[in-house]
Amino acid sequence: MIYLDNAATTKPCREAVDAVLEAAGEFGNPSSLHGLGLKAEKLINRSKESLAKKLKVNKKQIYFTSGGTEANNLAIFGAAEAMKRTGKRIITSKIEHPSVIEAFKRLGSVGYDVVFADADREGRVNIDSVRNALTSDTIFVSIMHVNNETGVIQPIEEISKAVKNVSPKCIMHTDCVQSFCKMPVHPSELGADMVTISAHKIHGFKGCGALYTGNVRLVPQIYGGEQQNEVRPGTENVAGILAFGAACDAAVCDTEALRGKRELMRREILNYAPWAEINGSDVYNSGSVLNVSFPGIKAEILLHSLERHEIYISTGSACSSHKPQPSHVLTAMGIDAASVAGAVRISFSQETTDAEIIEAAKHIAAEADSIKRYMR
Amino acid sequence: MIYLDNAATTKPCREAVDAVLEAAGEFGNPSSLHGLGLKAEKLINRSKESLAKKLKVNKKQIYFTSGGTEANNLAIFGAAEAMKRTGKRIITSKIEHPSVIEAFKRLGSVGYDVVFADADREGRVNIDSVRNALTSDTIFVSIMHVNNETGVIQPIEEISKAVKNVSPKCIMHTDCVQSFCKMPVHPSELGADMVTISAHKIHGFKGCGALYTGNVRLVPQIYGGEQQNEVRPGTENVAGILAFGAACDAAVCDTEALRGKRELMRREILNYAPWAEINGSDVYNSGSVLNVSFPGIKAEILLHSLERHEIYISTGSACSSHKPQPSHVLTAMGIDAASVAGAVRISFSQETTDAEIIEAAKHIAAEADSIKRYMR
Repeated sequence: MIYLDNAATTKPCREAVDAVLEAAGEFGNPSSLHGLGLKAEKLINRSKESLAKKLKVNKKQIYFTSGGTEANNLAIFGAAEAMKRTGKRIITSKIEHPSVIEAFKRLGSVGYDVVFADADREGRVNIDSVRNALTSDTIFVSIMHVNNETGVIQPIEEISKAVKNVSPKCIMHTDCVQSFCKMPVHPSELGADMVTISAHKIHGFKGCGALYTGNVRLVPQIYGGEQQNEVRPGTENVAGILAFGAACDAAVCDTEALRGKRELMRREILNYAPWAEINGSDVYNSGSVLNVSFPGIKAEILLHSLERHEIYISTGSACSSHKPQPSHVLTAMGIDAASVAGAVRISFSQETTDAEIIEAAKHIAAEADSIKRYMR
Repeated sequence: MIYLDNAATTKPCREAVDAVLEAAGEFGNPSSLHGLGLKAEKLINRSKESLAKKLKVNKKQIYFTSGGTEANNLAIFGAAEAMKRTGKRIITSKIEHPSVIEAFKRLGSVGYDVVFADADREGRVNIDSVRNALTSDTIFVSIMHVNNETGVIQPIEEISKAVKNVSPKCIMHTDCVQSFCKMPVHPSELGADMVTISAHKIHGFKGCGALYTGNVRLVPQIYGGEQQNEVRPGTENVAGILAFGAACDAAVCDTEALRGKRELMRREILNYAPWAEINGSDVYNSGSVLNVSFPGIKAEILLHSLERHEIYISTGSACSSHKPQPSHVLTAMGIDAASVAGAVRISFSQETTDAEIIEAAKHIAAEADSIKRYMR
């Protein structure tokens, strides 16, 4: 098997699996007053320390959620609601993850003034588009760090500076689900007040994410017990949290290596199939994703034809893969419909080997060629 | 170790641990279009079938959440919002879990007309109190099936009949976190439109729950991808869900056995400490919880003194154990302050042995006696 869908999810690492087994033994409820509860609470703290260290933040400002989607929702709804008397304008981009776009649409339907900034042909959010939308009563901006369909790195620092310049009170949030542990993610350097991360993209388990909240005041989106300072109540997913920390500790954050893998795949595919088109910047790229179009073919057919070789890639985002809609990301980049329809996402992890890439590229190009011939 | 805090959380069973390991291998994203995605989706479906079979419901009406707290919140906020044009009155009781009470308070703060029904001395919600609150525009009622602090079974069927009689459109929700797999939980027989359940109370893992929604239309509380019909988006916690189903399949639902354990503990404690007081009905009891007061002592001191014998019990609910407030459940039952302050919760699982109960009862009574003497 050659697994090249690491942007959708990753295989849990040994450390994460061991952590779950440890949590199954130390099974106390972290809110219980007795020793078993304290032990479970310590496990959570250990993970918080791992994440805080990697992010270079205060561990008290990390809140665990059920994943990136909930963390993004908590950031967006929580901050927008807390600041609703300060202003109504909120800004995001047209290339965000559905958990950001749909949350913004929802806020738009309840009276917030929502702007979706444009992206350029290279897959980067257009800073001028953000600047033009900025008003002194803009309360919240959310721009992702690395795009999940293209791997393109967004100009978070520049956007943050522009935002704070016009509206100093404005909260800057960035979805770092695709960048965390693939490249440095330091909120202070990014100029981000809040950051979303997710365990299953870094070889942890699905069902666990976190929001770094900085000093931002959030209206809770779930109500219940006293857990997590009542910002996010509910008994903590101890096993998932412990695995998140273990995966974070074990993660090799080698951007250059990832960029090398992406470059190798790009070269090999273009070698076999010169008619392929690479989507998104090669320069501003995390290296974890190669988005490539085979114009004229249907990406889904290519995806399925590769399964017989046990090669796994994807069309756009897994979160909207069952929807028969063209990628909103590539469309926003101005890519024409035939190239959008023929676009696949090939995504790497540190475990992906050069041999796998060379082997996969050959099959990807050959199957694309054969589908194209068949479609003529 | 004698673990008697099973109402707070349970030890994951072997089947649940095996399920997590299976999910670590079948690690595809259930939303991915390729074979690995389909395999993960099948794992989720397998669990849904296990839960649906136990609940005797349609598996398509089961939605997974991050736990009981989120499931309760989704039921309450989702239904209240969907029905806001039908009416504003919503009813719950004074003895609900914080995830219900706090959600109702929140709705009260945004314009809903909230009534908290009384409980009687036996720990049962007073049906007349619910009846008196019922209006023809009551849109939502949430009453728990089994109370988490006392184990008392609530008159859900009678309340549901009274509710539907006065307001046929009203949604009846019941939090079955403490009853599921301990006694039969069949929404149709209970007269419940929606039911909340949780994995970690039935020897699954923390971080996974489910809401049976019946035909109720819910406004989603999280926005994002297409997962779970967009009722509850976000990549599913595949490992936790699979463990939930495995734990459900493995569960021995023997209410009589649990009631036998509770009765043995009750008898043994009263034998050693005749001054102890049992809180909540012995007749209407799931058998999973014995709430007992040692008036005049501080429950927390007793809890900690038992730790040296490796016996683990709790004061009220784990979800509010760090709050130095007297139990809202026992207070609502009209129990006097000294008895509330001296109340502990002893909770059983099918694995609890008679020998453990007899041994624990001796220590509980002896430590309570000694604390009482010391406090004089």
